[in-house]
Amino acid sequence: MIITHPTLILDKEKCCSNIRWMLDKATQHNVKFRPHFKTHQSIVVGEWFREAGVKSITVSSMRMAEYFGLMGGWEDITVAVSYNILDIERTRHVASQVRLNLVVESPDTVVFLKKNLKCDAGIFIKIDAGYHRTGILHTDTAKIDAVANEICNASNLEFKGFLAHSGHTYQAKSKEEILTIHNESKQILSALKDRYRSSFGTLENSIGDTPGCSVADNFGGIDEIRPGNFVFYDVMQHYLGSCSVDRIALVLACPVIARHQERNELVIYGGAVHLSKEFVFNSDGEKIFGLVTLISHNGWSEPVAGAYIKSVSQEHGIIKAPSEFINTINAGDVVGILPVHSCLTANLMKGYITFDDQQVDHLSRHC
Amino acid sequence: MIITHPTLILDKEKCCSNIRWMLDKATQHNVKFRPHFKTHQSIVVGEWFREAGVKSITVSSMRMAEYFGLMGGWEDITVAVSYNILDIERTRHVASQVRLNLVVESPDTVVFLKKNLKCDAGIFIKIDAGYHRTGILHTDTAKIDAVANEICNASNLEFKGFLAHSGHTYQAKSKEEILTIHNESKQILSALKDRYRSSFGTLENSIGDTPGCSVADNFGGIDEIRPGNFVFYDVMQHYLGSCSVDRIALVLACPVIARHQERNELVIYGGAVHLSKEFVFNSDGEKIFGLVTLISHNGWSEPVAGAYIKSVSQEHGIIKAPSEFINTINAGDVVGILPVHSCLTANLMKGYITFDDQQVDHLSRHC
Repeated sequence: MIITHPTLILDKEKCCSNIRWMLDKATQHNVKFRPHFKTHQSIVVGEWFREAGVKSITVSSMRMAEYFGLMGGWEDITVAVSYNILDIERTRHVASQVRLNLVVESPDTVVFLKKNLKCDAGIFIKIDAGYHRTGILHTDTAKIDAVANEICNASNLEFKGFLAHSGHTYQAKSKEEILTIHNESKQILSALKDRYRSSFGTLENSIGDTPGCSVADNFGGIDEIRPGNFVFYDVMQHYLGSCSVDRIALVLACPVIARHQERNELVIYGGAVHLSKEFVFNSDGEKIFGLVTLISHNGWSEPVAGAYIKSVSQEHGIIKAPSEFINTINAGDVVGILPVHSCLTANLMKGYITFDDQQVDHLSRHC
Repeated sequence: MIITHPTLILDKEKCCSNIRWMLDKATQHNVKFRPHFKTHQSIVVGEWFREAGVKSITVSSMRMAEYFGLMGGWEDITVAVSYNILDIERTRHVASQVRLNLVVESPDTVVFLKKNLKCDAGIFIKIDAGYHRTGILHTDTAKIDAVANEICNASNLEFKGFLAHSGHTYQAKSKEEILTIHNESKQILSALKDRYRSSFGTLENSIGDTPGCSVADNFGGIDEIRPGNFVFYDVMQHYLGSCSVDRIALVLACPVIARHQERNELVIYGGAVHLSKEFVFNSDGEKIFGLVTLISHNGWSEPVAGAYIKSVSQEHGIIKAPSEFINTINAGDVVGILPVHSCLTANLMKGYITFDDQQVDHLSRHC
């Protein structure tokens, strides 16, 4: 592999190991595994899930459902965002060939789908279990009743259950805090299922965040998990405690274009249009836009101690590192950057290359 | 124009007015106008510059030089980042058909280009005039001497002058601070030109940042300006004082997918993969990921008072706004978001549509 510009390398072995690990965990806890494909957005990576035995997936847009359903041959897809009624034409097209689950949070949307969808779909009610991004607040049972009743009035729609995304685990300061949020979400959804069982029969509870699914060891009351980021993990997940750093499966290979020994910095070709502007704070309160590794022919090193991307502009990044490291690197060398947020980096890079030179597709190459 | 998903609309009239305004300013101050094309990255927008009389351009990667030079027919291109020696093959290809200026900051790179380029190029020395991202510190005349001498030793390389990017104007808190930085950069480059004139003859000084070029009214000692962002401007530039808000030429049209009246919020389809995660702080210290407008058939409104994107996740954003506005919007409506950083939004959206339904290309669609 010859690197001349920022290149996103995917370690297939680590990625497949992450897939098996989460699948095994789901199996062990007797919950259905419906991985979110918004992180990798790749039919090729999707095949690795399929080879592991996965049959049902989650996506975050109707375009993604179209890509995986119509191009990738996935037959059971949940579009896990509140339904966008402007997308009805594409929805009809996808739903005519794929078993689709949609997510709603208002009676009006259900009425719209009843009238306009012209084919069948499963419906989850989006529940706000504390993240407060969107969804019906779990205590607002009047609104949940109204939505549930509308679903049951529509012969083309099947009420599947309740879906929540506990994205507030991303703000957690410790594993304990992640677990507390996870347990709250479980309790909230369990109580809803109990409340509605008598009227609506068997319902499913679906949860999704990677931090919760990674650290939790109890999924009582949950029927399905939809983590996505775990397929690659990233520096943010590592800082949250979701994964050890050696489970991160993506690295951005970047040419070094200048060295500034007087301030222990390197300038790399690799910036906001490659990594994104996502950052985390390290324990010293400094912003980190990526960690630094050394790439070999078949993998990469542990992060270089004390080295990190301290800032990114459109095309370039600045590495801050101890002088012992800076002194070993010259302009024209290539370093590896572990991304802070792998979903955004993958989307920007529009594809991957593996160590055996396989080109791996990404949806963003198609739109 | 039917909006079903996030769509980047370009107001051609505003864009062309921004182009004419900056070109007129350069003409009036007798400086060469070599606009940076990294913001729009579009051959179509490039044509609007050409129609206004522009003949020379700036880019930030060899790929961009290839796109504009070989596909777009631009014959005079400066690649205004420190040269990446790993890109020599592509450079040779571009330089064989385009008059190329490269930027260097080490004698080694000059020696490399002398030996490997196999064709002619102009060379600017990258000067660090205070931004401290990269370049030779203007006080390090020993290093500048070494680079200049190496350039003059290479028969294929022509020493053009000094190039600086005063990106620290982006951290300025006022127009006065932008002007102070601009004036410092001018003085630094003027002193360098004076110092090297006797040995190297006529040299050019080139500066680039949009805040400085927008607010300054004195370009004494400067021969060339390379602003880029002004072609679209954005919320960040507006907050910096570079432009009035009505000069922003891009808006992201986003479907509304949920309304939360109890907390005065709307959820839109439009997030980090459309807008980027760039933010600015408003005067209350709140993070702003975009401002909110209403789109008509041929333009958009002033920003809705008190309304802004308070957070973005991968595909979605949350609008916070006064209840009087929230109450007028329903799921299924479309709102317009003025981006915080138009370069990053354009790169993510990979193209634009104009109000007369012209599809406008972007380089990121080709790689």
